[in-house]
Amino acid sequence: MEEILVYGHRNPDSDAICTSIAYANLRNILKNNERAVAVRIGELNEETKYALEYFGVDNIPYVDNVAGKKIIMIDHNERTQTANGFEEAKVLELIDHHRIANFVTAEPLKARVEPYGCTSTIVCEMYMEKNIVPSKKMAGMMLSAIISDTLLFKSPTCTQNDIKACEYLASIAEVDLNKYGMDMLKAGTNLSKKTLKEILNMDMKIFELAKGRFGIAQINTVNEKEPLEKKEEYLKEISAMIEELKLDGFMFVITNILTNNSVAIVSGEKVDVIEKAFSKSNDSIIELPGVVSRKKQIVPPLTNA
Amino acid sequence: MEEILVYGHRNPDSDAICTSIAYANLRNILKNNERAVAVRIGELNEETKYALEYFGVDNIPYVDNVAGKKIIMIDHNERTQTANGFEEAKVLELIDHHRIANFVTAEPLKARVEPYGCTSTIVCEMYMEKNIVPSKKMAGMMLSAIISDTLLFKSPTCTQNDIKACEYLASIAEVDLNKYGMDMLKAGTNLSKKTLKEILNMDMKIFELAKGRFGIAQINTVNEKEPLEKKEEYLKEISAMIEELKLDGFMFVITNILTNNSVAIVSGEKVDVIEKAFSKSNDSIIELPGVVSRKKQIVPPLTNA
Repeated sequence: MEEILVYGHRNPDSDAICTSIAYANLRNILKNNERAVAVRIGELNEETKYALEYFGVDNIPYVDNVAGKKIIMIDHNERTQTANGFEEAKVLELIDHHRIANFVTAEPLKARVEPYGCTSTIVCEMYMEKNIVPSKKMAGMMLSAIISDTLLFKSPTCTQNDIKACEYLASIAEVDLNKYGMDMLKAGTNLSKKTLKEILNMDMKIFELAKGRFGIAQINTVNEKEPLEKKEEYLKEISAMIEELKLDGFMFVITNILTNNSVAIVSGEKVDVIEKAFSKSNDSIIELPGVVSRKKQIVPPLTNA
Repeated sequence: MEEILVYGHRNPDSDAICTSIAYANLRNILKNNERAVAVRIGELNEETKYALEYFGVDNIPYVDNVAGKKIIMIDHNERTQTANGFEEAKVLELIDHHRIANFVTAEPLKARVEPYGCTSTIVCEMYMEKNIVPSKKMAGMMLSAIISDTLLFKSPTCTQNDIKACEYLASIAEVDLNKYGMDMLKAGTNLSKKTLKEILNMDMKIFELAKGRFGIAQINTVNEKEPLEKKEEYLKEISAMIEELKLDGFMFVITNILTNNSVAIVSGEKVDVIEKAFSKSNDSIIELPGVVSRKKQIVPPLTNA
């Protein structure tokens, strides 16, 4: 039986992992002569581990290269965020909620892109359209992704569709959204086992903008003082990443999930572009009050700067 | 009320025009506080004129530039095929059945892409999902687009979804698919009022491929001898277009809708790439037996050559 790889972006977050699991499940229910397999192209973060463990879902296999494979891309489309070997893969489908850029296919494909807060909301709607009620485990995967991407509906990226889907899924998964959501988000702020380099790479994406190539890393926390105390050590790691990845600028965005404010450690040759987009940095720090969404509140100002 | 422009590609065919009309109609039924307006960025061809006249649908306005507008793109996504001012427009939606390439948006959008034979099949499915029965006129628009793009189901691009949608639409529009279809396709072969330059531009698309920039024009006919008799004059016009549009190669594909074979007049500095993809040209002519689809039978071999 033909195998189709379903995967989310590099440095996968809960949307990338949990939505891949839920969509592979749906596709396998709908199609008999193919087998969709959810895989990942990076390590699980603590938040996603919590979600998988809570709902008793197994981790998914790591894949290094997708050359020669049929693929379904979840929660990303830009070349810098996808798997090695992408050019030699056949893209069957794309399910995403980001802008489209640096994405080229050789042939027509199926694409379902919506400006929602989370890709799982699209997949939940696909279950509904096909009149398939997701299992408790799959409902748990999708609601975890939605909570993660919308920061429990607090992010400006959150839409009515996300809230509606998440409430529907919570009724199937039999969880209290607020309690489970805060527990899961807090689990994601546990960085005690990680090196600074690992923390910077947990959710780092590269954006090719008109003004240059920018790396933007983001972490959630319940206390931004802790990472800020290690600023000098982070800046050293960031310098190494800038050189290794040939970046023109870097933002390390630390988001407090209790206050919904962020603060960024910034660096790089084109830090002036970042300052133009937000505000003057003070000792490599920019305050970002009310900012929680990279996609909606950081990338657009940086693109326009 | 905010105006949203809905438009298909340059050198519009029946899919580009009729699907824009049918989708603007659907969106206006679904959304109260916006007004979707179907527009075109080129002249109607004879086939599309026949369809509009048959179903009593008015021609749609011509728009030269979409800068500053909110837009919905139909039946195309590549930059070379879209409107002037695209970079300064806000892309709300994309509905398409082509590969994705040279398409960049600043923000997340809604995209619905399916590997179907025709974009109207996607729109027809959207009507069905929303439980809205299209009017006779709108059904006529969509079935005309499907007949046109699939050459009455003869093209290898045609899927079961296209056939199913078209039969459903024919029952609403109260037409005999075969009779109406052949009449409409034949109307499109009437080129008597057009100059050779106009004929070459009727359905010409530019493709940026690894090996260069190729123009591929296609016309339908019931008798390929007529255009072939004017080969030398066509070659002169093609040379001018190659220079004007900075092309590396050009194929003028003449498709017989009765026999479902094509023949191409080829020219340009990189005609060797075209020959590698198909066969050696004989006096600037390449026979293409069984070829009717540019998307499925011409662009992929040329991309791989």
